[in-house]
Amino acid sequence: MEYIFPIIENKLAQLVKEHPNQKVFNLGVGDVCLPLAPIVAQAICDATLEMTREPRGYGPCGGYPFLKETICAHEYAQFGISQDEIFISDGANTDASSIQELFPTESIVAITDPTYPVYRDANLLAGKTLLTIPLKEEEGFLPKPPKERADFAYLCTPCNPTGVAMNHAELAQWIAWAKKHRAILVIDNVYNAFISSDEIPPSIYALEGARDVAIEIRSFSKWAGFTGLRCGYMVVPKTLHVPNLHAQWTKRTDIKTNGIAYPIQRGAEACFSIQAKQELDAQIEIYRTSASILRNALEEYGQTFFGGVHSPYIWWKTPKGMSSWEFFDKLLEASRIIAIPGSGFGNAGEGFIRLSCFLPLKLAKEAAHALHHHFATA
Amino acid sequence: MEYIFPIIENKLAQLVKEHPNQKVFNLGVGDVCLPLAPIVAQAICDATLEMTREPRGYGPCGGYPFLKETICAHEYAQFGISQDEIFISDGANTDASSIQELFPTESIVAITDPTYPVYRDANLLAGKTLLTIPLKEEEGFLPKPPKERADFAYLCTPCNPTGVAMNHAELAQWIAWAKKHRAILVIDNVYNAFISSDEIPPSIYALEGARDVAIEIRSFSKWAGFTGLRCGYMVVPKTLHVPNLHAQWTKRTDIKTNGIAYPIQRGAEACFSIQAKQELDAQIEIYRTSASILRNALEEYGQTFFGGVHSPYIWWKTPKGMSSWEFFDKLLEASRIIAIPGSGFGNAGEGFIRLSCFLPLKLAKEAAHALHHHFATA
Repeated sequence: MEYIFPIIENKLAQLVKEHPNQKVFNLGVGDVCLPLAPIVAQAICDATLEMTREPRGYGPCGGYPFLKETICAHEYAQFGISQDEIFISDGANTDASSIQELFPTESIVAITDPTYPVYRDANLLAGKTLLTIPLKEEEGFLPKPPKERADFAYLCTPCNPTGVAMNHAELAQWIAWAKKHRAILVIDNVYNAFISSDEIPPSIYALEGARDVAIEIRSFSKWAGFTGLRCGYMVVPKTLHVPNLHAQWTKRTDIKTNGIAYPIQRGAEACFSIQAKQELDAQIEIYRTSASILRNALEEYGQTFFGGVHSPYIWWKTPKGMSSWEFFDKLLEASRIIAIPGSGFGNAGEGFIRLSCFLPLKLAKEAAHALHHHFATA
Repeated sequence: MEYIFPIIENKLAQLVKEHPNQKVFNLGVGDVCLPLAPIVAQAICDATLEMTREPRGYGPCGGYPFLKETICAHEYAQFGISQDEIFISDGANTDASSIQELFPTESIVAITDPTYPVYRDANLLAGKTLLTIPLKEEEGFLPKPPKERADFAYLCTPCNPTGVAMNHAELAQWIAWAKKHRAILVIDNVYNAFISSDEIPPSIYALEGARDVAIEIRSFSKWAGFTGLRCGYMVVPKTLHVPNLHAQWTKRTDIKTNGIAYPIQRGAEACFSIQAKQELDAQIEIYRTSASILRNALEEYGQTFFGGVHSPYIWWKTPKGMSSWEFFDKLLEASRIIAIPGSGFGNAGEGFIRLSCFLPLKLAKEAAHALHHHFATA
């Protein structure tokens, strides 16, 4: 993936140079585009100004109790998770790339293809052995447990890049696989705010047995527009069937981090107030509607695609068997839409592109309109 | 170290229970105690409110150019370091514990004894082999290069816990050692704001040849009271004699992090304004004076100690050959002063305790007065 973005940026620069007056729609990088909720910003400012009156030095490495308590009460207490099983971090990227430190270098890690590249790259950097699980179009890009064993497995659901979310029965298969192989599931659930059906569990811990096998990663990035503020959290249960992982992660957190900024943690806490939740729900509703506008446009032209319902991503099969990059170029040329070539997420992503739906409604409508140009000229 | 603080807290709780009306002086943990400079807080608030008008998503993983440019102009351009050799992070703890990832597991890392425990613990967690360099009282606790080789070495100067700062000639010996053994020096220079003499270089890069062998860690924590805000930076030169370390660190940063909060980076930038620098210098002057008040009290009673001049730490030799813990108990009982037993920083710290001088003047004077009780009853 580290090579894709420079290529895309070069192509974009070239296009802007050649056609400076044409609007370009960036449906590439999955970054929020709506402003920070004022009530959250106010909490950050209040906490910052508080520090000018009363110094506040090092906080607890794994996060302040006020934030862990709030998260636990709203998200996890119902599933039997306690606040001391929650670790506050500077985001899901850090958690997803660091959690592998709990496993010896010679461990085997199961990773889907396509995948969010951080899982793959961080584990390769650490010298871990990869067991790749190719996702198949005919299986709706749903990850099925492999026959082989692994020490741990990453599952992103709702999924980046495919947009596919796993239901109770599908996740239960993975829990059974983990139990059988004494493996740990690392569930990346940072798009949980987009889940819009009871069929998709809001957390892995809604499932029987999950507390024995699963670590869950969450984030304020996509729910509350925190991509530029950096706050996430991870649940490492004390009951995991591989012994001592909770104690090891506590030790690792105490040694290698000094927690995250106090004002940012106050901002994260503020997201759970009734007023903030309303504001944030309204933002998610905008992204969800934008996704639906784009889905409708693709449906109108009989396109094959996945996702875009419980996630902000649409995984679009390239028409006429084009390669990901061929279609990327064509889409950029005909519609001024930037997507991410699916091949950037792994070999099994070839023949697909990812559309990000983090768009205000007006832009989503304009992008859908721009798609008409594509189909008109295709 | 992870076992020391709970023990200290238990002893403190016991004392407060038995003598609830007696004041306790916390000269233990090295944390700032003065409030955040208002001009810095304002910059953080302005940046946060800006995000409510215009969204600001993911920033560059290694930090915003505005901050790297500012740091470079004020701190490093004079030594030939360029801004793209500077990496912004969430603090020195993270940098000191992560930099070892650049070296293979079988590498040898040289670490002093006593040491800031993060170097030791993070490298042990990562499975590295330690070459311990015992510091000696008769050498003024100055680290001398070992006869043996190592792949990299940590040097904290001005030093936590000993308070000793290395001069040009002493550092030049380490540069020569590194050149001879093709080793890398990791210079932890987070107390640079306390340097008060030209004899101590403000940066390792003030020395000839340092750009070939040295990585330098800096932080806003102790200079600008950022312990609760988390912002630091590390210089990884492109010219290091072990090839590709800069490129590898860039790749690692891009994969494993998503940068730090935009408002915090704006706050860090604001530290360099003329007005902020005056406020921050005044704070450092307070800590420096507090250190001098405590040094004078120890001198008055003919005590042996190190540091406290170019650093906020005094490394005090226990009287009458007491062990670190014996003296800790005695000091707590007689003077209500909490120190850190030197043995917590390594075996060679036995027979010493560390006093932290991050104190407002009034408290420093009261603590000095409390020392009289100790000597009166000793």
